[in-house]
Amino acid sequence: MEEAALVEQLKRRFAAVLAPGAAGLMDDAATLPPISGAARVVSTDQLIEGVHFVGDEHVQSAGWRAIARNLSDLAAMGASPVGFTWTLALPTRWLAGRTSLLDTFARGAVAACARYGLPLLGGDVAATSGPFVCSVTVLGDVRGAPLSRAGARPGDGLFVSRPLGASARGLELVLRGVARSRRVLERRALAAHLWPEPELALGRALVGRASACMDVSDGLLRDLPRLCRASGIGAELSEEELWAAVDPAARALGLAVALAGGEDYALLFSLPPRRRPPRGALRIGRVVEGSALTLVGATGARRPLFSGGFDHFA
Amino acid sequence: MEEAALVEQLKRRFAAVLAPGAAGLMDDAATLPPISGAARVVSTDQLIEGVHFVGDEHVQSAGWRAIARNLSDLAAMGASPVGFTWTLALPTRWLAGRTSLLDTFARGAVAACARYGLPLLGGDVAATSGPFVCSVTVLGDVRGAPLSRAGARPGDGLFVSRPLGASARGLELVLRGVARSRRVLERRALAAHLWPEPELALGRALVGRASACMDVSDGLLRDLPRLCRASGIGAELSEEELWAAVDPAARALGLAVALAGGEDYALLFSLPPRRRPPRGALRIGRVVEGSALTLVGATGARRPLFSGGFDHFA
Repeated sequence: MEEAALVEQLKRRFAAVLAPGAAGLMDDAATLPPISGAARVVSTDQLIEGVHFVGDEHVQSAGWRAIARNLSDLAAMGASPVGFTWTLALPTRWLAGRTSLLDTFARGAVAACARYGLPLLGGDVAATSGPFVCSVTVLGDVRGAPLSRAGARPGDGLFVSRPLGASARGLELVLRGVARSRRVLERRALAAHLWPEPELALGRALVGRASACMDVSDGLLRDLPRLCRASGIGAELSEEELWAAVDPAARALGLAVALAGGEDYALLFSLPPRRRPPRGALRIGRVVEGSALTLVGATGARRPLFSGGFDHFA
Repeated sequence: MEEAALVEQLKRRFAAVLAPGAAGLMDDAATLPPISGAARVVSTDQLIEGVHFVGDEHVQSAGWRAIARNLSDLAAMGASPVGFTWTLALPTRWLAGRTSLLDTFARGAVAACARYGLPLLGGDVAATSGPFVCSVTVLGDVRGAPLSRAGARPGDGLFVSRPLGASARGLELVLRGVARSRRVLERRALAAHLWPEPELALGRALVGRASACMDVSDGLLRDLPRLCRASGIGAELSEEELWAAVDPAARALGLAVALAGGEDYALLFSLPPRRRPPRGALRIGRVVEGSALTLVGATGARRPLFSGGFDHFA
């Protein structure tokens, strides 16, 4: 198929979520809408066949996830979606058939765009001899100062926005070839992995309230140290609270695997002591002086987080 | 190499052209600078190993071109650069050696960023089993109404900003394995292909003056019909003027090949009759009613552009 025909096909698919004057579709660039808020932010991420998804069975989910993971970055800044651009590196294989893989992918992406109000601003498609690569750049507006990883202070509480680990369990099922299940917890795990939900509403609500925030995309055990380094602080995590923050669907994985799995797309944030945590948030510990990350057991025993059993996952 | 170490390496490489608070480097998204102008525009494009460049010899040029081709889209809108984000899909092969291909690519990209004042705002790197893919998204500001493809009117003159075809001749040399030459015209052709220069200053100067504008990235014979369709007009091209618009380095290719080659990154624009063309611009014809594209020979003979010998290139 010619590039022009491909662009037309994608344009039809995205008709409902196309920004006025979208580019690559018309001019060489798209003119952005005026800023509605105090600041505009930009973030970018890519999804690669064979790395971020495997096989043809979950291509529609891959389209959803390509959008959702970028929206999660906006949520982490407290931003509302403004629009996105993307580039698609297309293997010939993706264009074949009555319902092409490209079309399946696009359907997943459109669903996420419609669900979260993210219009397409422009894009570029080109042939590749390698795997499919989708690169997405999202723009968002923040009403107030954008959330940052760098503001956590000693005494603040540490929270995650929802239970973790379900996506890790879902990925395990997918890799074992389980695409659907009648068991409630397995369905929950598959949904968490295949159709993750960015925490946009919560992110907005945390603007001006959370002292630091980021999204949990690589697993709490990789992401928490990033927040601590950015803020120049340490943390004490409660083993009991961590267990309570593991999704029921992931309990069987054990604490370390559930918290190292990645693609949770929950928000991890710190709140000054006087602030009431938002509904549904789960406390996992508190911010302390220094740089040490400490795990506090149910009996009060303290050990370093990364030589107490977690380090080989991080 | 770990992703964190890679990001650090790129950060050092880009130290001179890093935006304050660049993302992927710090927070989940980067906060954009305030708009300096009437409108902010966004454009995106990708560069794929094996498609847009071949072999390891011209990787530094590939880095330059990845930036330059996006800047050319900004030039086509009359915009000044604000910043860019990128994603890099990295084959293992690109990380090996004392001076890795990634580092070579980055040096080419940094050189273009420094030359045209384009800071890095954020990015993402990930492994791929396939070819290297670099996706770039640029943001720019326009002082006035962004230039568009859609405003050409009957009676307007049609111009290109500089001679065309040198890049096509350069590509021909590169594909024949000629990477350097002592012949002036071959050097000119290689430079045009390997180190193209976006017309940012001219683009800015055309804001409020040109009735339509785009950049010539796929060859005049592919791009002119796009401008005509967007504007809903036809065009009469002068064969004599077209010959004069072919770069001396490309004359030997013949008119059709020189004008179908692509990657010129000149600007194609229309000017109302009363406007004086900018210095260096080359007139190639005029805008007419209807939708026909006509070639007018030196003797005044008229034939359709795309059944007069050009059609098998378009």
